[in-house]
Amino acid sequence: MSHSDPAFLAHCRALLGQAHVLTDDADTAPFLTDWRGRFTGRALAVLRPASVEQVAGVVRACAEWRVALVPQGGNTGLVLGSVPDDSGSAVVLSLARLNRVRGVDAVNRTITVDAGCILQHVQEAAAQAGCLFPLSLAAEGSCTIGGNLSTNAGGTAVLRYGNTRELCLGLEVVTPQGELWSGLRGLRKDNTGYDLRDLFIGAEGTLGVITGAVLKLYPQPKACITALAALPSPAHALRLLTLMQDRCGASLTGFELMSRYCLELVAAHFPQLPKPFAAPHAQYVLLELSSSQSEAHAVELLETSIGAALEADIIEDAVVAASVAQSAGLWQLREHIPLAQAAAGKNIKHDVSLPISSLADFIAGTAAQLERAFPGAQLVCFGHLGDGNLHYNVAPPPGTPDRQFLANQDAINRIVHDSADSYGGSISAEHGIGALKRDELARYKSPLELRLMRAVKTALDPLGIMNPGKIL
Amino acid sequence: MSHSDPAFLAHCRALLGQAHVLTDDADTAPFLTDWRGRFTGRALAVLRPASVEQVAGVVRACAEWRVALVPQGGNTGLVLGSVPDDSGSAVVLSLARLNRVRGVDAVNRTITVDAGCILQHVQEAAAQAGCLFPLSLAAEGSCTIGGNLSTNAGGTAVLRYGNTRELCLGLEVVTPQGELWSGLRGLRKDNTGYDLRDLFIGAEGTLGVITGAVLKLYPQPKACITALAALPSPAHALRLLTLMQDRCGASLTGFELMSRYCLELVAAHFPQLPKPFAAPHAQYVLLELSSSQSEAHAVELLETSIGAALEADIIEDAVVAASVAQSAGLWQLREHIPLAQAAAGKNIKHDVSLPISSLADFIAGTAAQLERAFPGAQLVCFGHLGDGNLHYNVAPPPGTPDRQFLANQDAINRIVHDSADSYGGSISAEHGIGALKRDELARYKSPLELRLMRAVKTALDPLGIMNPGKIL
Repeated sequence: MSHSDPAFLAHCRALLGQAHVLTDDADTAPFLTDWRGRFTGRALAVLRPASVEQVAGVVRACAEWRVALVPQGGNTGLVLGSVPDDSGSAVVLSLARLNRVRGVDAVNRTITVDAGCILQHVQEAAAQAGCLFPLSLAAEGSCTIGGNLSTNAGGTAVLRYGNTRELCLGLEVVTPQGELWSGLRGLRKDNTGYDLRDLFIGAEGTLGVITGAVLKLYPQPKACITALAALPSPAHALRLLTLMQDRCGASLTGFELMSRYCLELVAAHFPQLPKPFAAPHAQYVLLELSSSQSEAHAVELLETSIGAALEADIIEDAVVAASVAQSAGLWQLREHIPLAQAAAGKNIKHDVSLPISSLADFIAGTAAQLERAFPGAQLVCFGHLGDGNLHYNVAPPPGTPDRQFLANQDAINRIVHDSADSYGGSISAEHGIGALKRDELARYKSPLELRLMRAVKTALDPLGIMNPGKIL
Repeated sequence: MSHSDPAFLAHCRALLGQAHVLTDDADTAPFLTDWRGRFTGRALAVLRPASVEQVAGVVRACAEWRVALVPQGGNTGLVLGSVPDDSGSAVVLSLARLNRVRGVDAVNRTITVDAGCILQHVQEAAAQAGCLFPLSLAAEGSCTIGGNLSTNAGGTAVLRYGNTRELCLGLEVVTPQGELWSGLRGLRKDNTGYDLRDLFIGAEGTLGVITGAVLKLYPQPKACITALAALPSPAHALRLLTLMQDRCGASLTGFELMSRYCLELVAAHFPQLPKPFAAPHAQYVLLELSSSQSEAHAVELLETSIGAALEADIIEDAVVAASVAQSAGLWQLREHIPLAQAAAGKNIKHDVSLPISSLADFIAGTAAQLERAFPGAQLVCFGHLGDGNLHYNVAPPPGTPDRQFLANQDAINRIVHDSADSYGGSISAEHGIGALKRDELARYKSPLELRLMRAVKTALDPLGIMNPGKIL
């Protein structure tokens, strides 16, 4: 052993060039601290290969010298999945230089990309070919598609287009032995053996290094139009979801819940944004409708559906955007919630998902438990209701210092996660597990499921060098 | 050893009851011959458990006595995946008695079912709750959802709703050790570790026994309307696909290619069916549009789009159904192709998929190779063009006896599969591998991919008792 073996780093320098084996603290720092700034690890080096062959060479070297490696894309993850631990024995393998769009096939509606492509660049390349790559999330200007795949990222378009998993047709992966698996197939149907693709997707770099992918593209909608509906309760939001899906089918492309407190936070910190209603309401839903026909068709279908919801006493009030431009304004309210939260101070974040039919009960039941345990705690409850995904965040009661409140983090997590689990929900809807939720995973998964996962891990990565300490 | 050990069958009888351990030839026969009647295997017994616990008990017994087991649903597979080999050492594990719909959640849009439910019963239970379970295929009156999941079945609605894989949210599986994994989650988003679900889906019973599933439901469209378009070539069909997707988005729910010869076969054997065009055309596309709004909306959108395609010289002629009832008539033309083929005699079937953009080149290039090798051979080329999936079947030249022609099966498979492979296609789009295509799989997959699959198989089924000889 091994990881301090100078021969290993010398080998890497020969492979990648001196400039792409970073060891100085100033150079490595951006790769070692997580996105939210909560943890800083240490690394033997940060390696920046420029080709798939260089990635394979690095992984072979890691296998030979028994050096652990942490694959990293844009390092925008929220669960400490892409930063090393503090042992200093691992290398960070940055995919950032593998950032080529390899090709677009507009007839097959596919795009083939390097794993290090920034998500926004993938969206742009698709748009240039007249197509839509629908994955969209707050970090899209920095995150990479390899990271999106490794965490099976969600975002705001899951209701219509699915998670990253559903947007991927083929993968290219360097195995933990440094071999290259070329699974870059652009096929809608392919039943030839085990689904290795979906095993690597969502594995957070613990089973191999994703180096490339074939992704699905969609026709560009002619127009996306939004409305903001005001409702008395989450149960009404569920009724609205059913009504909208029945009337609009796949044209319903967004359905986001926001509580009164969320919009009050936004109004307090971003007073320049629109205030759609004169009086406050308990809950709001931001709806988005996409039409492949025209802006007028989208507006008309949305207005008719909203009218039916008013008629049925499901909603109290609503604003329908009259154009694509107005629609962007309503989306801003939703997008500013995380920013308003950050401006307001610290909070304890959760990323739970529930069977959609249990959402109203979950929201009320969990709030009651939290109020008993931590009177006055503020819920910042919003999220992708149409996917059953809530960001159920908990902020201190007015007047309680952040630090004092954050000391309760474990107890609050326990209440929220136990409650989600009791409804058959998940403790991580779209963020993954990483190092942050590893112990939580062990708590909520059955021993059998953990054993099956470990069997897969051991079969593919017997040396245990791939992103150790993450997930399992 | 073991499989002839009377204690094993006595144990099974104690577990399931005398009546559900079939050993008489007359009783076991229907379970031992494949759907197309090409192969009859032998079995130690056919076991018919009635509960998940009984399935687990049987599998534990098989593990203890080292008896191989072949899970079987409706036994409608086309690749010898659900019948035993002729050694007589395996048991068939029929899931047919596990046929309960466990529940429908219309708000969550999910249905939870036993694996042995007939597909058509799942569709009916969904419809009773006002929802659509979109999986649809020729065998739907006999096949089971467990078989659909184990083979990742495709069918006619993949273009809009995806394969069976995309329709499944959660699984319940008995492992090769006879343990019960309860992964019956009804969540749209759940990023908590490795995707075991998709590993069992499509594994054809070689990694475990699927006993239950949570499936996605969709809103019922208000109307599905079809049109039949006549075109000069497959290349024109690809242009039509792009045009229709751009104009109709997710409303385009069917896009089936049929060659002139296909419709001539149907006309010859089913003269009572409609003949939409006075003169023949080289190719036809059956299009289906679904509207969540109304029948009138579907008809209008379809007529406008077909008009644009005529305007752009993409199609030569078209018939648009004026109602849902007329639409059924056009579908019959497509559905009668396999029946007309069977009536015409034997043929050599293929189930290939291609990148959609390569379909026209594949069809022409493969036809030219076949004509050189087997002059006069007839192509019965039809399929789910919108998914890149062709049933590229080859029938004898007029006057050549079936048996003489079928002797060329291996050489013809080689031409068709080599050609599909050369375009980045798949030798099995929706039928799976089973025993029939196992050697073909070994030919076309890379040694690394085969090694990864074997590593997974060994990790989960170290005794190798699960459906041996299938896939790997």
